[in-house]
Amino acid sequence: MRIISTAAAMQERALLWKRLGIRVGFVPTMGYLHAGHLSLVREARKCVGKNGKVVVSIYVNPAQFAPTEDLAKYPRDLKRDLKLCREAGVDVVFTPNDAEMYPRWGEATDEPAREDARPTGFSTYVVEEKLSQSMEGASRPTHFRGVTTVVAKLFNLVQPDAAVFGQKDFQQAAIIKHMVRDLNFPVKIIVAPTVREADGLAMSSRNKFLNAEQRAQAVILFHALRAASLAVKRKQVSAARLKTDVKEFVTAAPLARLDYVEFFDAETLFPVAQVKRGTQMALAVFFGKTRLIDNVRL
Amino acid sequence: MRIISTAAAMQERALLWKRLGIRVGFVPTMGYLHAGHLSLVREARKCVGKNGKVVVSIYVNPAQFAPTEDLAKYPRDLKRDLKLCREAGVDVVFTPNDAEMYPRWGEATDEPAREDARPTGFSTYVVEEKLSQSMEGASRPTHFRGVTTVVAKLFNLVQPDAAVFGQKDFQQAAIIKHMVRDLNFPVKIIVAPTVREADGLAMSSRNKFLNAEQRAQAVILFHALRAASLAVKRKQVSAARLKTDVKEFVTAAPLARLDYVEFFDAETLFPVAQVKRGTQMALAVFFGKTRLIDNVRL
Repeated sequence: MRIISTAAAMQERALLWKRLGIRVGFVPTMGYLHAGHLSLVREARKCVGKNGKVVVSIYVNPAQFAPTEDLAKYPRDLKRDLKLCREAGVDVVFTPNDAEMYPRWGEATDEPAREDARPTGFSTYVVEEKLSQSMEGASRPTHFRGVTTVVAKLFNLVQPDAAVFGQKDFQQAAIIKHMVRDLNFPVKIIVAPTVREADGLAMSSRNKFLNAEQRAQAVILFHALRAASLAVKRKQVSAARLKTDVKEFVTAAPLARLDYVEFFDAETLFPVAQVKRGTQMALAVFFGKTRLIDNVRL
Repeated sequence: MRIISTAAAMQERALLWKRLGIRVGFVPTMGYLHAGHLSLVREARKCVGKNGKVVVSIYVNPAQFAPTEDLAKYPRDLKRDLKLCREAGVDVVFTPNDAEMYPRWGEATDEPAREDARPTGFSTYVVEEKLSQSMEGASRPTHFRGVTTVVAKLFNLVQPDAAVFGQKDFQQAAIIKHMVRDLNFPVKIIVAPTVREADGLAMSSRNKFLNAEQRAQAVILFHALRAASLAVKRKQVSAARLKTDVKEFVTAAPLARLDYVEFFDAETLFPVAQVKRGTQMALAVFFGKTRLIDNVRL
């Protein structure tokens, strides 16, 4: 397994692979890998075969965190991540640094020695304007701009034939698919099923922030999704009614605070008035400062 | 010469070339070609050699026109353009249509038959936020968002090794270079010198909108650039002072109305206080509804 830490070296290798006709499967991550990530790696391998290359990027992307969010304390363990990638048969781990991904603007002073000596910083963003307005986008206004920007950059650096995203971040995957279509990236997007703990909690690097009591109650997200699935098994229910039910349901966990629950079309993310089988449901719940998300197709 | 009109066919061919190790030089245009465009084609050929492929796109990109601007009457002459491309040794002309480049959102109704049947439209833009604020960006607020978005799309469709832009659109070229750096496109950007008419007027598809009298006076842009070059040949001049001089100079052409004149650093586009040799100068001048631009390194 090769570890590449500069953008130039990653792109050079990717372009070499392209010339050699080697297929590339890509799994972008923020590290602190868990079984969910490893299932994405297996999907990527399945897609490109044993003659293809699987690239995992490990990069905690500052552009997708708001200043108030948990960038600094986002969990990191590169040594363990590399071990897991090695065991999973990853070919290349790409670990760029912030200075390279987002060059900073030079200070503008009144009397610079030479004006053209000021370095020009990062200022180009990829922005999806529709699907990114609701749910995670409403709770975290600059989040998806950061996601689409870094994924566009990583696609250009890694030049993948296919990229694998987790279904747990359903809205993210929908936006990435939309970006790929709109900007014509030659990349196939694969969305792999959410991997869950034994009790049903969706795997997430942020689960580690939960204390024992919060962790026990965190399963409420999964239970709420299951309860809603049952409710619409044989009949339609109004979204308004079901939202009220879910709110009530979540209060059964005293440490939980519901951020949002939405019922929507899986492709357009348009909210629906009537919930039925096939409708997508997503919710976000705070436990203290930790915010967990989950979703399911009902 | 091959004419390709669908995005899928263009990208398929581009990816084939990549696998075959064939270098691609790209000249994105809005058609109505003139000698300036043809000089860009020659640059592209020089860059990729005779074994490489030169692609010219002809697409009047609606995203870079404001609703008040001249999209509908922008000059078009595809037959003549194709003839010029053939004579210039172009390998592929790519002529996509609007429906494919910018799919439209389905109508949202209160009671759609099937909510997931609504088509999802275009909603992902590439936005450069710093260099695009001044000059053309100040006069045409959504213009550069349209430019960066379509160029990103075209880069993904054509997969060029190098792309050639004209120096006449200096700010555009600077923003494209910045976008390529920020989003890590593996494309070399070449900026080719402005091609001028015999009297010095920069070639532009919009020159055709000028009547005889306007055309005669349009050379004022070139003369203003030359006059400023002379003024700073041996000494620095304050930008404020020089702007006043240029304004006065342009009024010598009674049909001309100055939109802006700026003195700035060629790379960062930061305005400078003191103008000297090496400073970049740009101006925009209206003749009736026709807006002409030009620039020079002093």
